[in-house]
Amino acid sequence: MARNIQSLERAAAMLRLLAGGERRLGLSDIASTLGLAKGTAHGILRTLQQEGFVEQDEASGRYQLGAELLRLGNSYLDVHELRARALVWTDDLARSSGESVYLGVLHQQGVLIVHHVFRPDDSRQVLEVGAMHPLHSTALGKVLSAYDPVAHTEVTETERRVFTPRTVTGEPEFEGVLDLTRARGWGSDVEETWEGVASVAAPIHDRRRLPVGAVGITGAVERVCDGGELRSELVAAVRDCARAVSRDLGALRF
Amino acid sequence: MARNIQSLERAAAMLRLLAGGERRLGLSDIASTLGLAKGTAHGILRTLQQEGFVEQDEASGRYQLGAELLRLGNSYLDVHELRARALVWTDDLARSSGESVYLGVLHQQGVLIVHHVFRPDDSRQVLEVGAMHPLHSTALGKVLSAYDPVAHTEVTETERRVFTPRTVTGEPEFEGVLDLTRARGWGSDVEETWEGVASVAAPIHDRRRLPVGAVGITGAVERVCDGGELRSELVAAVRDCARAVSRDLGALRF
Repeated sequence: MARNIQSLERAAAMLRLLAGGERRLGLSDIASTLGLAKGTAHGILRTLQQEGFVEQDEASGRYQLGAELLRLGNSYLDVHELRARALVWTDDLARSSGESVYLGVLHQQGVLIVHHVFRPDDSRQVLEVGAMHPLHSTALGKVLSAYDPVAHTEVTETERRVFTPRTVTGEPEFEGVLDLTRARGWGSDVEETWEGVASVAAPIHDRRRLPVGAVGITGAVERVCDGGELRSELVAAVRDCARAVSRDLGALRF
Repeated sequence: MARNIQSLERAAAMLRLLAGGERRLGLSDIASTLGLAKGTAHGILRTLQQEGFVEQDEASGRYQLGAELLRLGNSYLDVHELRARALVWTDDLARSSGESVYLGVLHQQGVLIVHHVFRPDDSRQVLEVGAMHPLHSTALGKVLSAYDPVAHTEVTETERRVFTPRTVTGEPEFEGVLDLTRARGWGSDVEETWEGVASVAAPIHDRRRLPVGAVGITGAVERVCDGGELRSELVAAVRDCARAVSRDLGALRF
């Protein structure tokens, strides 16, 4: 049994390796990075390739992630109850706010974006579903860190990187931000993750009243803020959306 | 080595099982469906859960696919050269045609949608990235089957299901459809997969002049067809897009 588990853990480590940094790696690089014998690494890679989890470039012989992961990731979304309940409400929020809407859940040490509604204009936008956003600097991440004890543990145990001059990284200052988030019932990010971008987010609770995700809008600081503060009508729209989804999940039943 | 491979194959089979049909399964169902002892199945599931590939519902104890698959699927898209090259051209095609645009590649026995541009109107639409479409009845699938020998083998060895009264399933008739696709240089689907929906698609070639994917538009048959035939300006726009992406991939260099 231990042996089986080890080969699975190694396979997962290979997929994580291919998902970050270089993304196209040769057998030697993979084996040496993970501290495996070449033969062992090759056996795992060959099986992952047979199953569609990795693909090998014919010309270079390098490995990269495979198409089966996209198919399975899509199936994951199909059974995501939070996402299913949020589809209509997030569409409405994008329309009423005129900004992009993101729905995020805690995954590992970050926020995994499970739904993204484009800003309702004709601009070219890149879908962020499946992307990871930082916990400590984004509005979604602050909300999860403020309400979900697991997220709080992750964010306090992980290094808080500086993204802009406004990123809050110090321990007491960051805990103050979370206190404010809980006191107001919503989180914000004014150019703390991306220059020129501001966000506001609110928590979603399920029928057990546990925080299961966060929903928020993101847009140009010039549109989303007024005099350095988040525009209150946008805050209200985001909180309305979070309450509507929570209600659909059964959170407001007595 | 053989033992390692077996545990990986079993893990992949579990993920495939959870991706289809029921999607939330208990330990006993998983073990019996895959012909495994419960202890063996549990060891694999526990490791998959640790790695984020499956999640267990606290209330029911049932397993479902995990968030790590969405993150890895997104990373797969990030290194997808065909998709990266096609982003701008497919946006232009959606604007000029006024219809949804799909980019598909062969995966297993179907077409995996790797990019989807929404129809440029204000209607609510569901993202199809990561979804599988049938090879034998869709415009994308016919193009892949006509140009890619591997796709042709898959489509002839797989049962061709009837989706509508217009689905072509017989061997000689279907080969005739592929001959026509090759002769015209594009494929079509007029209510052969979904009632009321028509599509047109064209092949994309890479620098080795191999077929690596297909791009097409899909929309209401009333808009996409005229007198039962695909509107020629839409066919031209789709073929222009396919040529532009192929050129970006190096296919037209001498």
